[in-house]
Amino acid sequence: MDPRKLNVVRFVSVDRMMKLLLAIGVERALTDLATCIEADFRRWEQFDKTARVASHSPDGVIELMPTSDGSRYAFKYVNGHPRNIRDGRQTVTAFGVLADVETGYPLLLTEMTILTALRTAATSALAARHLAPRGARTMALIGNGAQSEFQALAFKALLGIDRLRLHDIDPQASRRCARNLERFGFEIAICPSVDAAVLGAEIVTTVTADKTNATILTDNMVGAGIHINAVGGDCPGKTELHPDILRRASIVVEYPPQTRVEGEIQQLPPDHPVTELWRVIEGSVPGRRSDREITLFDSVGFAIEDFSALRWLAGEAARRGLYEELDLLADPDDPRDLFGMLLRAEAA
Amino acid sequence: MDPRKLNVVRFVSVDRMMKLLLAIGVERALTDLATCIEADFRRWEQFDKTARVASHSPDGVIELMPTSDGSRYAFKYVNGHPRNIRDGRQTVTAFGVLADVETGYPLLLTEMTILTALRTAATSALAARHLAPRGARTMALIGNGAQSEFQALAFKALLGIDRLRLHDIDPQASRRCARNLERFGFEIAICPSVDAAVLGAEIVTTVTADKTNATILTDNMVGAGIHINAVGGDCPGKTELHPDILRRASIVVEYPPQTRVEGEIQQLPPDHPVTELWRVIEGSVPGRRSDREITLFDSVGFAIEDFSALRWLAGEAARRGLYEELDLLADPDDPRDLFGMLLRAEAA
Repeated sequence: MDPRKLNVVRFVSVDRMMKLLLAIGVERALTDLATCIEADFRRWEQFDKTARVASHSPDGVIELMPTSDGSRYAFKYVNGHPRNIRDGRQTVTAFGVLADVETGYPLLLTEMTILTALRTAATSALAARHLAPRGARTMALIGNGAQSEFQALAFKALLGIDRLRLHDIDPQASRRCARNLERFGFEIAICPSVDAAVLGAEIVTTVTADKTNATILTDNMVGAGIHINAVGGDCPGKTELHPDILRRASIVVEYPPQTRVEGEIQQLPPDHPVTELWRVIEGSVPGRRSDREITLFDSVGFAIEDFSALRWLAGEAARRGLYEELDLLADPDDPRDLFGMLLRAEAA
Repeated sequence: MDPRKLNVVRFVSVDRMMKLLLAIGVERALTDLATCIEADFRRWEQFDKTARVASHSPDGVIELMPTSDGSRYAFKYVNGHPRNIRDGRQTVTAFGVLADVETGYPLLLTEMTILTALRTAATSALAARHLAPRGARTMALIGNGAQSEFQALAFKALLGIDRLRLHDIDPQASRRCARNLERFGFEIAICPSVDAAVLGAEIVTTVTADKTNATILTDNMVGAGIHINAVGGDCPGKTELHPDILRRASIVVEYPPQTRVEGEIQQLPPDHPVTELWRVIEGSVPGRRSDREITLFDSVGFAIEDFSALRWLAGEAARRGLYEELDLLADPDDPRDLFGMLLRAEAA
């Protein structure tokens, strides 16, 4: 890019994001993303951290998720609207921006609906690498919507999970998920109930979309030694697990000030002990401690994961030339002469 | 737009923003914007309000400014980096998004560097209509950088100000400002000092850019009956007025929780009385009360002004066809089948 094209911000469209993922390969992309997220979690204390800024409405929520490491600044815009499905829209869409802290100038604007599904799955698998029982091969996947295949592939790529037990209240969703995953070498069972799905699974991933205090998993379904990856509950009043499970589990979260409000643990007293994922990743706190321990990753999604994903994407898009240029920033010849730029545009 | 093009978000580039302003006319745009801002300030209580989310660094600040009226959601990304001038960049750049609260889907993405200069000037003039001495014709304009012409034109369009007294520490900036405003029918004097500039002015606008506690105006320069429009001080540690002036003035602010941190009044005790602009606009609190009163609009810029500007722009851009279409949102045929979209892109 011409360094004097100060008006230009690189843009990765949905179309280019798909081209980029197909060029890299989804499993490879998930592994690379997990590596980036892991590296950033290891330097957790260098980041400006804040719970996301949420604007709630009767139908959903719109959130802004900013963070910075002092060199780069990133934020994501993301919505959650469960009813969107009814008129053919995504329940979750997102876009994001990476910017330069020194100048405040945006560097990259990108779709993040797909990228969010990837980074969420990569973070889940990264956490599971520390929390799931050793040698786990079978995962129950409860909720077979937009994020399910990404979760399955991340667990395959990072942990070697190759047996899936699918369940969704809509059997068509399970069939579609199974069909989409056909070529990736899983052994897949479609199960008629949550009970049936969790049978024999060492890992249970819940990724449902209702904006309610649902009880996808009840206490009796959860045996000793299981790792639960709870992804679907991520805002106030939206949970998936019965609180009795939470009381039996060792709970790992991303950023407690945010998870206490948005995660499964909103059902627990505010001082219930939890472990921060970054401490497990850097090794200062152990992950799984015994074969019989129930571990729970109470995932809500945190801004640093998006920061990592945006930095990864900026590199890949630049390397592969998979971006457009947006005329987003006013760039007068003389920076103090914004109005003159307008006058000259008129003359031209 | 095809209602099924759910992937598309309208985009107003810098180039199209300039075309749009030239088509409308800058003074007309400022007047229309002031009307929109006034209407939204009259329904102030319908908005979700929050102080902007700032990320400070040694060289500047990056801020996110969200708000919503329950039907539309808007946010602006804006930076403030005074040193940017040195390498030819803007000290302030911005872009923004308007979204639909019911679906969470973004509707419009736009450059806001120019739009911010416009809405700031429109808000200043709107406040001055209630606070400046009746019949004022002369404004001192201290700081003749990127925002100065917009301020001048807004005061002309809304209040009939037709005499300007310019001062800048860089005389070239004053000359450029005077030249840019040549055709707009002002009587313009370039003044060698702030003292000289304020002489005979009924309104004093300060719009300097240093990120310091500067003292652009000292107490002895401010006579009875003056209205001060303080625009340049807008973040912690960045002020323009000597605190003695503040103690003599009737102070009007946009949103106290934000202005107490960012505005001139950061120099005063946190309980110093201030008046909210929206109350003056709706008429529940008087504006100027006497000929000898010193009034001060301690402007820092608030999210509702950007909301108004974005709604105005969305209408104008649609009416005039001055937008592009960005492929920003993933839109699978089946909304639950995000991964399938990727597979089908590969097949295609």
